[in-house]
Amino acid sequence: MAKRVFNFNAGPATLPVPVLERARDEMLDWAGTGMSVMEVSHRGKEYDAMHHEAMSLVKELMGWTDEYKVLWLQGGASMQFLMVPQNLAVPGKPMEYVNTGAWSKKAIKEAKLFGDVKVVASSEDKNFTFVPKDVSFSEGSAFAHMTGNNTIYGSEWHYYPKVPSDVPLVVDMSSNLMDKVIEAKRFALLYAGVQKNLGPAGVTLAVIRQDLLTRVPEKAPTMLKYITHSAEDSLYNTPPCWAIYICKLVLDYMKEKGGVAYFERVNREKAKVLYDAIDSSGGFYKGHITDKDSRSLMNVTFRLPTEDLEKQIIDEAKKAGLVGLKGHRSVGGMRASIYNAVPMEGVKKLVELMKDFQAKHQ
Amino acid sequence: MAKRVFNFNAGPATLPVPVLERARDEMLDWAGTGMSVMEVSHRGKEYDAMHHEAMSLVKELMGWTDEYKVLWLQGGASMQFLMVPQNLAVPGKPMEYVNTGAWSKKAIKEAKLFGDVKVVASSEDKNFTFVPKDVSFSEGSAFAHMTGNNTIYGSEWHYYPKVPSDVPLVVDMSSNLMDKVIEAKRFALLYAGVQKNLGPAGVTLAVIRQDLLTRVPEKAPTMLKYITHSAEDSLYNTPPCWAIYICKLVLDYMKEKGGVAYFERVNREKAKVLYDAIDSSGGFYKGHITDKDSRSLMNVTFRLPTEDLEKQIIDEAKKAGLVGLKGHRSVGGMRASIYNAVPMEGVKKLVELMKDFQAKHQ
Repeated sequence: MAKRVFNFNAGPATLPVPVLERARDEMLDWAGTGMSVMEVSHRGKEYDAMHHEAMSLVKELMGWTDEYKVLWLQGGASMQFLMVPQNLAVPGKPMEYVNTGAWSKKAIKEAKLFGDVKVVASSEDKNFTFVPKDVSFSEGSAFAHMTGNNTIYGSEWHYYPKVPSDVPLVVDMSSNLMDKVIEAKRFALLYAGVQKNLGPAGVTLAVIRQDLLTRVPEKAPTMLKYITHSAEDSLYNTPPCWAIYICKLVLDYMKEKGGVAYFERVNREKAKVLYDAIDSSGGFYKGHITDKDSRSLMNVTFRLPTEDLEKQIIDEAKKAGLVGLKGHRSVGGMRASIYNAVPMEGVKKLVELMKDFQAKHQ
Repeated sequence: MAKRVFNFNAGPATLPVPVLERARDEMLDWAGTGMSVMEVSHRGKEYDAMHHEAMSLVKELMGWTDEYKVLWLQGGASMQFLMVPQNLAVPGKPMEYVNTGAWSKKAIKEAKLFGDVKVVASSEDKNFTFVPKDVSFSEGSAFAHMTGNNTIYGSEWHYYPKVPSDVPLVVDMSSNLMDKVIEAKRFALLYAGVQKNLGPAGVTLAVIRQDLLTRVPEKAPTMLKYITHSAEDSLYNTPPCWAIYICKLVLDYMKEKGGVAYFERVNREKAKVLYDAIDSSGGFYKGHITDKDSRSLMNVTFRLPTEDLEKQIIDEAKKAGLVGLKGHRSVGGMRASIYNAVPMEGVKKLVELMKDFQAKHQ
């Protein structure tokens, strides 16, 4: 029996145990091929069926229609920071971004290489402790870009602002993909490094409304055009087969459990348990996100009275089998990432440890 | 006991069984972490150590000095087709390419987006049945580019032509990486999708001479600059951890077996057995590569007298547990890819089947 820990890593992150067990069990002989899924041809019928089923499951679980294409890409969200403006910039039209932290800033930096960028809202002057209210995008802008969840600061959009009807809404959902039910048709392009809620590092999911595929300049490099990948169902070149396979297993697992609605319910319960523990600590634990409506369901960030105590609780948690709790260096303190695959049991153990620790050290 | 086949796929391709077994056995608890290697933080000490050891092993096995940097990238060779000219083009200097097949052509197409391309040699007019002799690159060109092995046609460079001392030699070694000992310092930049000889699809190996890192225009997108990845030891953003882990296991396995020299010896033996069978068949089997000095050690391409017979032998082979033998549509016939991890036993079984088939059908 393998020793397992409760894994609060911010990403790569914990995966469902049944997914790992299945990947283990079919490592030497996948789908009756007598080969690992890493060894089969990506042009063969077994791989092809799995690859397409995974795409269908993304649509089914998130409610997308045939107006959209699901793409498996590479390079993480960081590559999307350049592919988005490369594909969607329009000469003479501003690209509008909301700045809610480090990832938004990187996206903005890349977009500036491709044209005029307008930051329409930002929480930077308040150290990203909230997501802006009353955001308004301009008619006639090339597109509107938002970061769905800020992994580092622990903020999340719970309601996406309205965009003018001619403006495509583009959202980086790397750390809140499928954490809750969304109104799929409001998004024109969604992208996510999958290594939080959907799979291992090494594949990027993008879902794009098909009318946007032809906007890219003809002279853009082949691999950077969404239409290259769309036209070949993400088989233009060899895809990251293993990473897509793990996504497929996670998607199967999610569907079996009851889909995104099920995970949303559990995620809200887990987040409540943890935020309640913070809020009822009389200030011993202090959340980084000061606006409660901006709190992330996925990344719960908080501080203790001193850095010494922070170091101590993180060490004690690790000894108790709760790992990955150190906050990002730019925020400090603790961060508990409670993605879809983190069980309530782990969250309860963490809260118990937090209460014991406070009793001993207050 | 898992049923296993002999896998002659062109890529993704067979992996060493001990590598798969180890990956299976540590799926739920890797390196004592209580997590899969897919679930640990890429900033954690366990992952970091493995990631760097894999880079050191590449240098050790291929003989590279500290003048070079090993990079783990994403997007396959297809992404390198654009990254090479993006990083190494110099205004006013031609980029010189040799055209030995489909992959060279794709590389040439992308390079043209970045400047003036000169094709200095080509075997296209003879359907890529050889690699050109007496290739000569010009002094003062930006770089010289070659495809080390053509997976589709089955040709390979056994001796790389000399380049002027001021011209960096860039080679796509996707399908002949580590198939034989090379003189490492002759190459300025080598890249390879690893899914033939080194690992699963989803990571690209690049090895670059450090003086080339600063040539890239400042305004190039962050993720497309080699220096971005070099400066952070390929941890600028989340790397494809699983794929790098499998490469590390393959590198360990290769080192234990005796390094690249061992695999070169076995590869030459395997190729000889198969090419001898073709050459001694009295014309029943006919190699696509007419120049014997250009024959690939990795991809052995040949035809039978009729397409019916080709279909029949591929079916019979499959029934006998020899899979992946169908030639690429642009060449037809059969292709046996006999990468490092394909055992001599499989090659001998294939030759036996070929002899039996010929006796029945001639």
